[in-house]
Amino acid sequence: METGDTVADAGEFGLIAEISAAQGTAEHVLIGPGDDAAHLSVVDGTYLVSTDLLIEGRHFRRDWSSAYEVGRKAAAVNLSDIAAMGGVARSLTVGFGVPGILPMGWVRDFNRGLVEEASHVGAVIVGGDVTASDQIVIAVTVMGEAHRPVIRGGAMPGDVVAFAGRLGWAGAGFAALSRGFRSPKAVVEAHRLPHPPYAAGPQASNAGATSMIDVSDGLLGDLGHIARASGVAINLESGLLEIAAPVATVGEALGVDPLTFLLSGGDDYALVATFSSQTELPTGWTRIGMVLDGEGVTVDGDTYPGESHQHFR
Amino acid sequence: METGDTVADAGEFGLIAEISAAQGTAEHVLIGPGDDAAHLSVVDGTYLVSTDLLIEGRHFRRDWSSAYEVGRKAAAVNLSDIAAMGGVARSLTVGFGVPGILPMGWVRDFNRGLVEEASHVGAVIVGGDVTASDQIVIAVTVMGEAHRPVIRGGAMPGDVVAFAGRLGWAGAGFAALSRGFRSPKAVVEAHRLPHPPYAAGPQASNAGATSMIDVSDGLLGDLGHIARASGVAINLESGLLEIAAPVATVGEALGVDPLTFLLSGGDDYALVATFSSQTELPTGWTRIGMVLDGEGVTVDGDTYPGESHQHFR
Repeated sequence: METGDTVADAGEFGLIAEISAAQGTAEHVLIGPGDDAAHLSVVDGTYLVSTDLLIEGRHFRRDWSSAYEVGRKAAAVNLSDIAAMGGVARSLTVGFGVPGILPMGWVRDFNRGLVEEASHVGAVIVGGDVTASDQIVIAVTVMGEAHRPVIRGGAMPGDVVAFAGRLGWAGAGFAALSRGFRSPKAVVEAHRLPHPPYAAGPQASNAGATSMIDVSDGLLGDLGHIARASGVAINLESGLLEIAAPVATVGEALGVDPLTFLLSGGDDYALVATFSSQTELPTGWTRIGMVLDGEGVTVDGDTYPGESHQHFR
Repeated sequence: METGDTVADAGEFGLIAEISAAQGTAEHVLIGPGDDAAHLSVVDGTYLVSTDLLIEGRHFRRDWSSAYEVGRKAAAVNLSDIAAMGGVARSLTVGFGVPGILPMGWVRDFNRGLVEEASHVGAVIVGGDVTASDQIVIAVTVMGEAHRPVIRGGAMPGDVVAFAGRLGWAGAGFAALSRGFRSPKAVVEAHRLPHPPYAAGPQASNAGATSMIDVSDGLLGDLGHIARASGVAINLESGLLEIAAPVATVGEALGVDPLTFLLSGGDDYALVATFSSQTELPTGWTRIGMVLDGEGVTVDGDTYPGESHQHFR
């Protein structure tokens, strides 16, 4: 079968062959792609699993992001979930729904981005499924391992709240793109391509983090998940939230308080965690608030206007 | 938050709450739904994983199948992949993309079907993701365990080919529905709701099956995967392929050789495997052919016209 210019030219088996060719291998993969299921080994007798669905027009736009960037991002949002448990991702499966008229070049570039991002943590693609669909649909499931998984529900009053990674960059980039701007380049690129602080997850676990989550919906919203699961209140200190120069620039240009990008913007995939106040924070982690008795998330003691992103609204 | 009549009324968190409420638990689930990832234990230090993507209008139609049936089917096609490795499914994750206007009743019935089908093998839903999309998109990943995984590539010349489950029923049902018929009821229901022979997978593994696959694309097509992976030829004996009465009825009504439904129809999720000729076939397995030197799949020594289903074609 010849591989032509579009997915329809290549056909299902051509598409699978193209995708499989780019995949690496690893010691824990006993049976890899191409059978009814992959067969994987684990070290400690347990594993972590998480899944995310990305839909064209909702999670990415082909005119805003290249196929390579979409591939990187599709892997990143999933790998980040394993980091947020204090774990290291090992394996990915990918369900891929694509229109027949999609150029095969898009598929190749997407796949290259996916494999490359996974390789940053040593993870490999172990299986998948391809099918025809009207919109591009990307369903990634990630599996990984953690010595000591860190849940959302373990924060205690008196704990310190800290984050690793970047806050507000992707949100500022999204705001700029939405208004038709293509700069500042740093924040626009941050929206297209998150750089989750993968290693900070296991570091926080080793340091004894009491709870952790990755910031996908916005800092306030995701800390709200920790507060609810732990039965505590969280107060952030705005003086500890450093506003990066390009984020400040977007705020100024759009007449928006740049703190909004840090507090409500998603898609940077920072990690936020709580630690006992006796714990020395690992390198790369910055204190931004405290865990208190009560409920809800406040900034300098007050509720912050606005809410985090919910789908269907 | 109030749960209204549509997905948009319920909102993302209402939708997640609704789905989570129906989920069971199991001993191997150390951390279940609601955190960044699930944490699962395994018995033998290894696990199986497979993923399938179902798209509205391609894999199911809301006017042909109820939400409950779609849920049952979405689980079944995935559970079948683990059976086809000789394993038992333990855990599922579900990525669920739905239009905001979808009635919440559809979601509830879908979820009920999904949970019920999974319970047939003792599997539970351990996590998922929901998002808005134009078409209904269902991405299921299944994880399970096998003492001795059976791959596609182990068939040897001289082996016996056998199947378990049903052949041709769903294909005949699809043909009937496509021509506007709603009967025979048995085959129409077989298309809506497969009944994969889950237990036959581990039984074949225990009996020493040399290769195995589930029939999702059609018997000839899927045996072609075994023949290619094993570097062998396979010959089916039509006299051993029993044509069930309702399948024969559809053939007669539509003027189609009913053998076509058995050889090229997918969606029954029968299991087909190869065994050494010395092996006594487990209960429920029926001999239908032989493994030979060479390549390709034949019926009574001849190539059979027609080809198996490929997406994008």
